[in-house]
Amino acid sequence: MYTIGVDLGGTNIAVGLVNENREIVKRLSTPTNAERPYDEIIADMGAIVNKLIDDNGIDKKDIKYVGIGAPGVLDNEAGTVSDNSNIHWINYPIRAKFQQYVDLPVFLGNDANVAALAEYVGGCGKGSKNFVMLTLGTGVGGGIVLNGKLYTGSHNIGAEIGHAIFKADGNKCGCGNHGCIEAYCSATALIKMALKDLDENTDSQIAKSEKVNARTVIDAARDGDEYGMKLFKEYTDNLAQVLASIVNFLDPDVIALGGGVANAGEFLLEPVRNKVQQHVTFSHLYGTKILKAQMGNDAGIIGAACLGE
Amino acid sequence: MYTIGVDLGGTNIAVGLVNENREIVKRLSTPTNAERPYDEIIADMGAIVNKLIDDNGIDKKDIKYVGIGAPGVLDNEAGTVSDNSNIHWINYPIRAKFQQYVDLPVFLGNDANVAALAEYVGGCGKGSKNFVMLTLGTGVGGGIVLNGKLYTGSHNIGAEIGHAIFKADGNKCGCGNHGCIEAYCSATALIKMALKDLDENTDSQIAKSEKVNARTVIDAARDGDEYGMKLFKEYTDNLAQVLASIVNFLDPDVIALGGGVANAGEFLLEPVRNKVQQHVTFSHLYGTKILKAQMGNDAGIIGAACLGE
Repeated sequence: MYTIGVDLGGTNIAVGLVNENREIVKRLSTPTNAERPYDEIIADMGAIVNKLIDDNGIDKKDIKYVGIGAPGVLDNEAGTVSDNSNIHWINYPIRAKFQQYVDLPVFLGNDANVAALAEYVGGCGKGSKNFVMLTLGTGVGGGIVLNGKLYTGSHNIGAEIGHAIFKADGNKCGCGNHGCIEAYCSATALIKMALKDLDENTDSQIAKSEKVNARTVIDAARDGDEYGMKLFKEYTDNLAQVLASIVNFLDPDVIALGGGVANAGEFLLEPVRNKVQQHVTFSHLYGTKILKAQMGNDAGIIGAACLGE
Repeated sequence: MYTIGVDLGGTNIAVGLVNENREIVKRLSTPTNAERPYDEIIADMGAIVNKLIDDNGIDKKDIKYVGIGAPGVLDNEAGTVSDNSNIHWINYPIRAKFQQYVDLPVFLGNDANVAALAEYVGGCGKGSKNFVMLTLGTGVGGGIVLNGKLYTGSHNIGAEIGHAIFKADGNKCGCGNHGCIEAYCSATALIKMALKDLDENTDSQIAKSEKVNARTVIDAARDGDEYGMKLFKEYTDNLAQVLASIVNFLDPDVIALGGGVANAGEFLLEPVRNKVQQHVTFSHLYGTKILKAQMGNDAGIIGAACLGE
């Protein structure tokens, strides 16, 4: 038996045929052209899934279901998607529309949640019971798996961990609030921190680089650059307190860190782990593992292909 | 069939015989004398449970189990209690010791979690699926019920919501960290806020009261006292952001507020509800009800008596 995972991204619709070992055995992709009416996007999504099935001579009876991961608030019960700020879908009946093209059971999930599910089933969360993932990228995405099940809340708007308040009255966040985790722990936040006092740190290798991104700052810290180390310390102090809050709140087996900042690997994780322990209330009983996410670009397809489990 | 709930408090051991409608039909209590060796406390706990059974002529076969709610970190799987900062129990085999006196199945829970469970089964959380309780008292206690089950994390140290960071580098908390929710939302925090600038607000009715407690401040706000209203606004601003963070994180059906501050009832809840909505990321999909806890002093016994469900 197979499942099919659909990763509806802002740029591409990527689909994959996934086997029982949760490996992508065949894949296809087509541009999203996200500005189009959503009916057109769904039509293309249906067409590419059918092509995946037909090209590989798969009998539909051998496909358990199709899982779709998409941005926005996905309501798997109602079969709808809402509040995708990029594509402006509101209560759009994504399942019913998609099933006009593909006559298979369909499960829905938000893209960040789907990535967490992938990491849980096949990545660094494998074998754990309670699992939290944070994606430290342009924003801070969140995903929660509890007792082995994706947790999205009572109205499908949970796991928006990036918008929990970390520093009340603090940095302005893209969402309009002040002090969100995202405003301190995203790659964007790290870049902003670096740019803020860059004029006063012209000796730093960060000031000499053509473009400042998260990697510029992390490389500078790694190279022993004073300004880079200062920024990195501040960032990891903040991140560690956020992770300690997650431990105090949900005490998971594993917290996975993904996204651009997490590419720093152990250079990031080691100091963060030590600092987290200092902030956990019952620190001597603390056992959460803080690990780098492993699934990379395939997380969208594989997670979607597990949504029905 | 009955269950028995044991509420091990710092002052009293309260026990109750609870029927299938989750009503306390008989109750007894005895002083804890918490300074004693824990073996003695457990012996008294066993004695009073046996007395409850014998006095009422109950056949042990009609008792499904005994649930014990106690301070500290309770490990229901291992049958132990750790890290009770008041009574200094570390990995104490509470279940095995108790069963030397009472030969019945025993379930264990932390007291704050047990109170949340009581509120979930018989109070304002009744009928909900995902439920969070905050007790706004001397500290801020937390309890989480997800998919109808008490959630305590992978190492039994979760649901310590009071020690999630709300304002990094902010007010010092009793736990040693800075900026915990407890340092902004407990009754203690409200009192500290009031005392801080009291010298500059000698006209306020708060300055004229013999002793400042949470009620003094809330009454002043209710009476239109300028300083009282300012403090109350600040407190509710903070609390609302905390609750919005909980919504963004777990999106429960209900958040119950208990403890001294919550006694202010609708005067507190109404402004808080409005402010929460402003801070929730997907505010138009927000559906969490914010309610006053109803179970009062019986929560400890009733929640404990439900631990085996």
